[in-house]
Amino acid sequence: MAITIRTFSNDEALVKERRKHIVQCSMKILAKKGYDRTNMRELAQACDISAGSLYYYFGSKEEILYSIINTATSEQADCIERFASGLRRTNIKAALLRTVRVFFQWHDDNQDITLFIYQETKNLSRDAREHIFESEARILAVFENLLTKGIESGDFTIKDTKLVAHNIIMLVHAWALRRWYLRKHFTFETYVREQSDNILKMIGADTTDTLDL
Amino acid sequence: MAITIRTFSNDEALVKERRKHIVQCSMKILAKKGYDRTNMRELAQACDISAGSLYYYFGSKEEILYSIINTATSEQADCIERFASGLRRTNIKAALLRTVRVFFQWHDDNQDITLFIYQETKNLSRDAREHIFESEARILAVFENLLTKGIESGDFTIKDTKLVAHNIIMLVHAWALRRWYLRKHFTFETYVREQSDNILKMIGADTTDTLDL
Repeated sequence: MAITIRTFSNDEALVKERRKHIVQCSMKILAKKGYDRTNMRELAQACDISAGSLYYYFGSKEEILYSIINTATSEQADCIERFASGLRRTNIKAALLRTVRVFFQWHDDNQDITLFIYQETKNLSRDAREHIFESEARILAVFENLLTKGIESGDFTIKDTKLVAHNIIMLVHAWALRRWYLRKHFTFETYVREQSDNILKMIGADTTDTLDL
Repeated sequence: MAITIRTFSNDEALVKERRKHIVQCSMKILAKKGYDRTNMRELAQACDISAGSLYYYFGSKEEILYSIINTATSEQADCIERFASGLRRTNIKAALLRTVRVFFQWHDDNQDITLFIYQETKNLSRDAREHIFESEARILAVFENLLTKGIESGDFTIKDTKLVAHNIIMLVHAWALRRWYLRKHFTFETYVREQSDNILKMIGADTTDTLDL
């Protein structure tokens, strides 16, 4: 389902560019101040444009919120689909671990937005949320597909690929969601390595020979 | 560290009772409307008391938020510590799985507050957050302790009990955090059973003979 965002311009490339700028600048101030505590005037200031200009690109604060969350989740889905499709000839354990690592890396690079999505998605309409969940479904499908291939090749033993795919996503999100705790005990590198081992154990895969992945 | 909440009454039992009432009623409206969108007047209305009375028990909206989150996390920690300490003579795999189930049950009974904690803890001061994290540390300690005992008895193979304890908590929280997805595919019973199996696999434990736990 498409969410319509209003625009009155015909110059699509320019509009796209300006929207991207607004999404990036708005994200920073919204993550810092909170969605409810920030108004359109402050968002315009943060983007260094007039409030009138801002309304030209986005009809409301909710439209900006939707664009921020949708951009982040689509980006993740694109990134992970592209990466996994480039690994078709790699052995399945390596393919899974490398995809998990890329997914971890995205969340390390974008911790604030991951946290922000959990905190602020509630402010979106039901339709907008359903649309966001479609990107999530694409990410889950990438991991389910890798897990299924591993079962077929005899490398993995999994009862429910849907649930394990969900668990992988959850352990990655945790790096952002529970950073107040995890940062005290783990570096990014040790977290990724140890969680990769935990994931391999969960899917009944061989946990040796993973150092070069 | 203790967070001081002001009160002018000497009748401690009554004050405690009234505060409990306020915490319960406020939680419902705050979870529904959002912390930033609700003011003290509306909280008083929801609690069926005057704004003056509300200020008698809590000096600010942040104090109420702190009490809601602190009550929930302390309750969880109490519940899980009490349950685990009653299982000292149970075999370790059964003790772990039963404690995991009690923890799942608490989060199924209290989904809204779990979600609320992830969304609204950001509104607390650093000191208040640190205090909340102490209850979290107690919960982590219960699971770490069970995992360590299982390593000592030779039932579990775990590289890092701290991380696995964290993963158990994360998979339980997910039941509330990602319910929009999980409810479409799992009942509470199938989720607990399948995640218990996934946890056993992650800790290298025998996954047979778990049906009666």
